[in-house]
Order: sequence, then structure tokens, then C-alpha cells
Amino acid sequence: MRVITTIKEMQAEIKKLKSQSKSIGFVPTMGFLHEGHLTLLNKARIENDSVVLSIFVNPLQFGPTEDFSTYPRDFARDQSLAECEGVDIIFYPSVEEMYPHSSSVRVIVQDRTDVMCGKSRPGHFDGVATVLTKLFTIVMPTRAYFGIKDAQQVAVVEGLISDFNFPIELIAVDIVREVDGLAKSSRNVNLLPEERSEAVVLYKSLTAAKNAIEGGERNPQTIKNLVSGIIHSETQGQIDYVEIYSYPQLKEIENLEGTCIIALAVKFSKVRLIDNIIITVRQEIGGEK
Amino acid sequence: MRVITTIKEMQAEIKKLKSQSKSIGFVPTMGFLHEGHLTLLNKARIENDSVVLSIFVNPLQFGPTEDFSTYPRDFARDQSLAECEGVDIIFYPSVEEMYPHSSSVRVIVQDRTDVMCGKSRPGHFDGVATVLTKLFTIVMPTRAYFGIKDAQQVAVVEGLISDFNFPIELIAVDIVREVDGLAKSSRNVNLLPEERSEAVVLYKSLTAAKNAIEGGERNPQTIKNLVSGIIHSETQGQIDYVEIYSYPQLKEIENLEGTCIIALAVKFSKVRLIDNIIITVRQEIGGEK
Repeated sequence: MRVITTIKEMQAEIKKLKSQSKSIGFVPTMGFLHEGHLTLLNKARIENDSVVLSIFVNPLQFGPTEDFSTYPRDFARDQSLAECEGVDIIFYPSVEEMYPHSSSVRVIVQDRTDVMCGKSRPGHFDGVATVLTKLFTIVMPTRAYFGIKDAQQVAVVEGLISDFNFPIELIAVDIVREVDGLAKSSRNVNLLPEERSEAVVLYKSLTAAKNAIEGGERNPQTIKNLVSGIIHSETQGQIDYVEIYSYPQLKEIENLEGTCIIALAVKFSKVRLIDNIIITVRQEIGGEK
Repeated sequence: MRVITTIKEMQAEIKKLKSQSKSIGFVPTMGFLHEGHLTLLNKARIENDSVVLSIFVNPLQFGPTEDFSTYPRDFARDQSLAECEGVDIIFYPSVEEMYPHSSSVRVIVQDRTDVMCGKSRPGHFDGVATVLTKLFTIVMPTRAYFGIKDAQQVAVVEGLISDFNFPIELIAVDIVREVDGLAKSSRNVNLLPEERSEAVVLYKSLTAAKNAIEGGERNPQTIKNLVSGIIHSETQGQIDYVEIYSYPQLKEIENLEGTCIIALAVKFSKVRLIDNIIITVRQEIGGEK
């Protein structure tokens, strides 16, 4: 496994791989790897000749009041984990390497950002799209891997790849869940014991929604009420949002049809958890995508 | 010579060329080719294994009051000219092919646009940068060719390539001039006979500026006054601007040092002409870059 810190060296390496017609699987991260990242790396390892992991805490995607400087970093640990997953190259540039001077161009995401978590993070997805544009032109991957837990980010990346014509296959990897259904997250350790038991209600409410839709329910508001009702009745956690949109367009819908997302965020005493389910509704037959 | 109209087919062709390690010279245009374009194609032909010409009148770079629908188009003529210059592929997509739906992302140029011609065309360079981002990911050229006559566009493209890390060499091709020094332009035919004689003053004033700088003058305002004075005294044409900046950053400078541009625009009765000269000032020795 090689660690590359300069764009120039990375592009030379990629040129070499391309000339050998090697497929490249790319997992872009901000480091401090957790089980979700390892799932992405594992899938990338299976599906490609070469696997590139990038570790870059991107200042552009942090708001002025957000935690860029205190964001957790542990490169030695990440390096060991990457080695175990069979990563070929870690791309680990400094902020100065990625943004050597004030940029004259940047990417604006003009859609898909005014809903869900995007509402409370203005500019966040512009920063994500700008750094990914850079990383995509540097790494030129065949496939790029993202966790569907952050479904809004996946929707934005889908738009970026499609609108800018990157010849990249976007692989959205399913949510990894605990045995009881709670979506895995490094934040789960911040749940109080009683909250940890209650938190299973997030997935339970989404499963109930899926069942209702499979049973023929097509009204988004009815489904939202169902989900909210279950959460209210089974936890002290406060609902931040329960939303339903077309996916990946993230547009309001009047009826559940085509591919839709049911997404939610619930605040517990020390932590806010998110979860979602994406369902494709075909005529009278529904099924999880 | 092949004419390709779909992005999918173009990307398949480029993939093939890349796997054969062929270098690709790219000349992006809006068609209605003139001598300037042919100079770019000729240079691209000499320096690369394959030459790709794109012809696409990009609606994004026209303002609401500008002439998108009446912009001149003559594909049959362009095709003949391209054939003569040894072009391998013309990429000729429709607007629907390039923008099949409302885009969720676009590129913003946040620098280098508030000077020279950019002042009067808000949003123009955002449209240029967005379509070039798409064309660069589609064509993946080794080298991209632009005429330095549109020096501000070259500066914006330099920023785009550098900031987004496109592995592309930007080739800025010198201004082609008539025997008397007037920069070639399809607009020159709109000069009245008397204006045509006078128009030589544009280049004459820039040459005088160059001579003054080579003689040791370092004050931008003195040079601007010199240029304006010559233009005023030798033509009825009205000065739109005479500006001096660092190049390609297009920042105001207090002293002429490093690489600088002297750019001007002059309005004649039916046409506005632009011209420029780029000079690199080293210590006491000056020379055109």
C-alpha cells in the first residue's frame, strides 16, 4: 500500500493505471474510518483492480460555526485499517496541496440541498461538490463508493456525476445495521443506555412505512404521520424531521410513485441520529430498491 | 473525420484513444469557424495524435439580452474547414444532449471576471466554465487550445484547469494579425474604410506601451495614459477601456513586474474591437512572453 500526498504524484500513478486499463475503485473520506467506510472499501476491493482511499478533511464543507479544527483525525489508525482492507493507494493531501491559493472557481449545488439535513448546513454541499470535482479529476475512478446512510450526499453526487458527465459509476452502498436494526454510526456510543434501546424505533418506523406502502398506501402525509406517530409513542427523542421525496431528485411528491426516500432525523439527549429507506413503487407492486 | 453527436459515443471513443495512449488535442468552439480557429486546429494537429473539435453554441454563456438564437451557425462549412485542417473528430452535440434537464450543479467563477469585458457580461464566464468542465470530462484532452485574443477567457480557463486539477495542458495561441498589425477578427469587416485605416492604432498603441516598458517605464497609469493618448489622437473610435493587470490573475498592480496584460477595447461606428499584449517584466529586462 502506498501513501501519496501530492496531486502530481497521484495523477502520474493514475495515468499509469489507466494505460494498463486497470479499473479504479475510489472511496473518498474525511478519515477516522469506521465500519461504514470499511464496508465501502471491501466492496471496492471486490469490484476493481485498484482501490484508492482518499483521506482529506475538507475545510470547504464546514460552516463557520462547525468543527473543522476539532474534527477527529487518526492517520496511523486509518492506515492500518486500510492495509487490512487491501487498499492500494491512500491519497492523503494537505489543505495547502488541495487549496494552494484562493480558488478562482467553485461548484455550486443549486438543487437537492434545501431539504433534509441540507436546510441547516448552507454551503455544505457546495464544499462537498467542489472537493469531489477535484478528487474525481485527480483519481479518475471507474467507480466511486458512498454510503446511502447519507442519502442526500449520494443524491448530490449523482447530480454532480451526471451533470458534469464524469465517466464514473456511482455505487451507493446499503446502510449497515446492528442486529436490532439501528443504523451503525460512530455517534451511537453517545446514546444513553435507555436511548439506545429506544433508538431501534427509527428503523421500526421506516419498516412500518415500507409495509404500509407495500400494502397500497400512496399518500406521503399519511406515511409521515405513521412514522412520526410510532417515533413519538416509543421514545423521548425529539423528531427533527420526517420527510418524503422523489429520489435522487429530492422533490416534493403528491403520491408515492417511482423511487422515493423516507428520511428522518431524531434528536436524543447528546446525539442526533439519521436514518432512511429508499423504496421503488411500481404500479401496485412495491419493493425496496 | 467522424462527427459524433452523443456524449456516450464520444466518451467511448476517448476511452479507446486513451487505452492506445494517444495524445488528444482539443479545440472547443461555438462553430462558424474563422482564421483564428484554424490556427488553433493547425497547432493542435501538429502537437497531438488525435484532434477533437467541438462545435456547441452554449446557451449558458449568453445573457438574457444577448444573441443566442441569432448567433451565426453553418455546420456544413465548418465541417469542410475541419476536414481541411485534419480534424479527427467533430463533437457536435445538441443543447438537449448537453443539458437534458435542469442541472443540479454549475461552476461559478469567483475571480478574474470583474474586469475588462467581464464587467459588462455578468454570468458569462460562469457559463463558459460550466460547459468547459463538461467538455473536459467528456473529451479528456491532453492539450486544450485557446486564442489569447480573448485573454480574459484564457485567464478563466487557466484558473479552471488549475483549481479543478484537470490534467490538461492549456495552450494559449498568439494573436494572428493582418500585415499592418490589426488583430484578425470576423468583426473587422464591419469597419468603415476610414475606420479600417485608423484601427491599426490599437496595435500601434500597444507596441508603444511595450517599447516604453522595455525602456524602463514601470507605472501602469503612465502606460495607460500613453496608450489612451495615441488612440485619442489617431482615431474617432471611442475607448471603452484601457486596463493593465497581472496575468493570468487579472489583479490591479502598482508597478509593472512579472507577467502583465495591457488590454483595450475601442468602439467604432458599427463594431467594438479588442486587442491586448502580454508582457513579462524581469528586473530591468522586459520582453513579450
